[in-house]
Amino acid sequence: MTSPAYDPNNIFAKILKGEIPSVKLYEDDDTLAFMDVMPQATGHLLVIPKTGSRNLLDADPAVLVKLIPVVQKLANAAKQAFEADGVFVAQFNEAAAGQTVYHLHFHVIPRHEGVPLKPHSGKMEDIEVLKANAEKIKAAL
Amino acid sequence: MTSPAYDPNNIFAKILKGEIPSVKLYEDDDTLAFMDVMPQATGHLLVIPKTGSRNLLDADPAVLVKLIPVVQKLANAAKQAFEADGVFVAQFNEAAAGQTVYHLHFHVIPRHEGVPLKPHSGKMEDIEVLKANAEKIKAAL
Repeated sequence: MTSPAYDPNNIFAKILKGEIPSVKLYEDDDTLAFMDVMPQATGHLLVIPKTGSRNLLDADPAVLVKLIPVVQKLANAAKQAFEADGVFVAQFNEAAAGQTVYHLHFHVIPRHEGVPLKPHSGKMEDIEVLKANAEKIKAAL
Repeated sequence: MTSPAYDPNNIFAKILKGEIPSVKLYEDDDTLAFMDVMPQATGHLLVIPKTGSRNLLDADPAVLVKLIPVVQKLANAAKQAFEADGVFVAQFNEAAAGQTVYHLHFHVIPRHEGVPLKPHSGKMEDIEVLKANAEKIKAAL
C-alpha cells in the first residue's frame, strides 16, 4: 500500500513558490493559509505546511506539530468572521478519501445550522467574493 | 459566539475515567485511541486527548501538538490494517458541524475505492467485530 512520492509540481507547491496566485489569509515560516477557490461553504479555507508531503500519512511529525496550532487559529477566526455555528475540519488522504491535490492540507469550513455543504461542483468562486471573505477572516485573526 | 464550557461528564471523559468501556487501540500519557462504536466504515477509530476540551476551538495548543502525531500514527496503522486505499480524517466542532460528543476527537476512517461511507445510523456495531478490527490495527501499530 505504498503511496507515490511527493510531486513538487502540485498546485499547492506552485502557490507556495508564487507561480500561481492565491487569496492568502496567514503566513509564517512553516505554514500558509489561503481561501479554497471552490468553497463548500462561505469562508472555506485551507491550511498547508511549507514543507512538502503528499498528505498526513507521509508527513514529518515535526511539520504536523507546527501546522495544527495554525489550523486551530484559522478555525477560530473563520468561526468568528462569519458568526458560524460550527467548524468542520477535514483532511483527506488519497483519492479514495477525497484528496485531489497531493500536498498535505487541512480544510477549515465554517458551518451554519440548516445550511448544507455545497458539493464539489468544480465551480470557481468569484475572486472578489473570496477576497472579501478573506478580509473578514484576517480581521478576526 | 461563545461556546458552553467543557462538561467533564461527557461520554469520552467517562471512557477516560474507565466508567464506560471502550475497545482501546493505543494509549500514552496524553492520548487515547479507541474504536468508534458506530463506524462509518470498517476500522473507524477515534483519537482523543486526555486533557479535556470541548473541541478544537478551545483546546490548549500544547495538547494539540501531542495529539496530532498520534492521529497520524493511527491513520497509517488503520490504512495498513485494512489495506485501505485512503484515510479520511475529520474533526467536528459544534453540532452544526456534526459534533455529538463534546470532548475533542479526531475521526480516522479508512476508505476503499467505491465503498461509500455509511450514514450515522445510530446502530451500534457488534462488539466482537470491533474487537477483531482493533486487533488488526494494533498489529499494524
